[in-house]
Amino acid sequence: MTLYAVIMAGGVGSRFWPRSRKASPKQFLRFSGDRSLIQTTMDRLAPIVPPERVLVVTHARYAEHTQQQLPDVPPENILAEPIARNTAPCIAFAAAHLAARAPDATMLVLPADHVIKDQQTFEHVVAIAAQKAQSPGALVTIGIEPTHPETGYGYIQYDIDDESGEVAAHPVLTFAEKPDQATAERFVDSGDFVWNSGMFAWRVDSIQAALATHLPEVAKTFAPVAASSDASQDDEVVVQAYADCPSISIDYGIMERAGDVWCVPASFGWNDVGDWRAFADLQETDSQGNALQGDVLIHASARCCVEAGERTVALVGVNDLIIVDTPDALLVCHRDQAQGVKNIVNHLSINDRDDVI
Amino acid sequence: MTLYAVIMAGGVGSRFWPRSRKASPKQFLRFSGDRSLIQTTMDRLAPIVPPERVLVVTHARYAEHTQQQLPDVPPENILAEPIARNTAPCIAFAAAHLAARAPDATMLVLPADHVIKDQQTFEHVVAIAAQKAQSPGALVTIGIEPTHPETGYGYIQYDIDDESGEVAAHPVLTFAEKPDQATAERFVDSGDFVWNSGMFAWRVDSIQAALATHLPEVAKTFAPVAASSDASQDDEVVVQAYADCPSISIDYGIMERAGDVWCVPASFGWNDVGDWRAFADLQETDSQGNALQGDVLIHASARCCVEAGERTVALVGVNDLIIVDTPDALLVCHRDQAQGVKNIVNHLSINDRDDVI
Repeated sequence: MTLYAVIMAGGVGSRFWPRSRKASPKQFLRFSGDRSLIQTTMDRLAPIVPPERVLVVTHARYAEHTQQQLPDVPPENILAEPIARNTAPCIAFAAAHLAARAPDATMLVLPADHVIKDQQTFEHVVAIAAQKAQSPGALVTIGIEPTHPETGYGYIQYDIDDESGEVAAHPVLTFAEKPDQATAERFVDSGDFVWNSGMFAWRVDSIQAALATHLPEVAKTFAPVAASSDASQDDEVVVQAYADCPSISIDYGIMERAGDVWCVPASFGWNDVGDWRAFADLQETDSQGNALQGDVLIHASARCCVEAGERTVALVGVNDLIIVDTPDALLVCHRDQAQGVKNIVNHLSINDRDDVI
Repeated sequence: MTLYAVIMAGGVGSRFWPRSRKASPKQFLRFSGDRSLIQTTMDRLAPIVPPERVLVVTHARYAEHTQQQLPDVPPENILAEPIARNTAPCIAFAAAHLAARAPDATMLVLPADHVIKDQQTFEHVVAIAAQKAQSPGALVTIGIEPTHPETGYGYIQYDIDDESGEVAAHPVLTFAEKPDQATAERFVDSGDFVWNSGMFAWRVDSIQAALATHLPEVAKTFAPVAASSDASQDDEVVVQAYADCPSISIDYGIMERAGDVWCVPASFGWNDVGDWRAFADLQETDSQGNALQGDVLIHASARCCVEAGERTVALVGVNDLIIVDTPDALLVCHRDQAQGVKNIVNHLSINDRDDVI
């Protein structure tokens, strides 16, 4: 087995405004320590694949920034998307690139901007998933054992054909869209539902066959990329492929339709850091529940998460706030309202406020 | 009657951090429009006394800034205190200066940093107070008809000897310290209590006699100032007077002890702008109760007061906050906790954070 990792790094991350901007989306942000999310993703892969077998698919405008953050990844491994077209074209692009370069390869597909705490279990799960992916035609997804009835994720129901409790690939029964609260509770109680993490493993020929069957228009647009020995660097071929390609997710386009789909349920401290609330929940807190970064003074305040930037920040008599300070913009957000940050970005976007988005 | 106005401008205004700093206390801040509080105080006096009869007592470090903000006030009218010693020495200093310069003068004493909305009534009340002050030995205070049972002010009880309801000076019965809530409610219900505003009128000889009787040590320290024709500009004499002088308020030192004390109850839209809550309450609000200054975006937020400074500020799902943004420091404060701002300043002071105080 020749394993390649494909890091999907196309996001713009407007939910992390004002830290994330068009010029610096979420995957490039340092949420803790001195490594960005994409660097942490790369670090996580180090024991599994060498840098020359890591591909990164990102928007063309982020290619240079990606290369700077991941200097060990060869330039030809950074695949630049001319326009964003969701995950199915992103994966089709990487598969086409590999079809020309390493047609026998197994692809491990990972988002660039998630947090995983338990590295050892992660490596074990990836090994099981990659092993299962050797079966011709198998599409393997890594599912996350739910810790609470989250309504913000899709769910995967699998067949508990093996009661041993060991990490293993199980046949997938169904994919479920983001549920309402009652349904989420039922899913979690049932014991055979996991969160859809957006991590996959499959052979190049398996995913290309699935694309040809279930998304023939996507397969067709990327055929010229696969046919070229260096097409991923050929702007014209790639630009044309993306121009002709519909915007569609791999879940909706392939996984929910294909037959030979497997799931490896996993529990390795996963967090997709989907918004500032998720970020805040990841931080270590003091006895008052505050997580304070930078020069922050507190009086009679609890359960606040502050990213102070370059300035002194003082809190007086406030609770449950997320405060993010940047040189040109400030966010003050209630912990339970972090989803509303995208409304701010939308409003800025509609009003051509390119100075702060 | 030769009326002089004495503006007391010694405050450091730490409650308005981070807008107020050691270098720029509250009286110099522009809270609305383009005039600072001390300039607004000066404007208020324009129809009553000419600039050459306006004295300003301030800390030496603010003398230059005061002169810049009040260019019409002659330099010799700015009396610089070498150290802060509360209101009794401040008034003794001004009285000593006037004793040498205009011994028959009547002094109208006003804090530099209050807001008064009804100029016409203010002028009328001042005229009544100044008239009463012509009576030899009379000490006249301007009291504010309470609008609510405030526990943050001292109260004055007066003798309702005249039921006409016209603006008039009444004998003072008692001064009361800041009350608890129940006492404040009783005061307000009684109808004969007013707030102690810190505004006074008296003849120079009246206050000097009262100082000699009730604060002889203060009177004595300022005697050399009164004896000099230009002593207020004589650093050595003034520095010595302040060095020898106790720190004591005019209320505690004189008003509560003297016999011939009068009060003019007034109702002219007074606000001492004592903290950010008082500031917020003065602002006009939108339909959500928000008062937003600068580039502020709001999502699902109400009853917030934001001073945005130079940056974009976004609020998401928050209520009842006061947010004050400055180039080097940010305050996020609950409306009902504005008194706690002084704890922040104390903490900064203890830790030698002169960079931001």
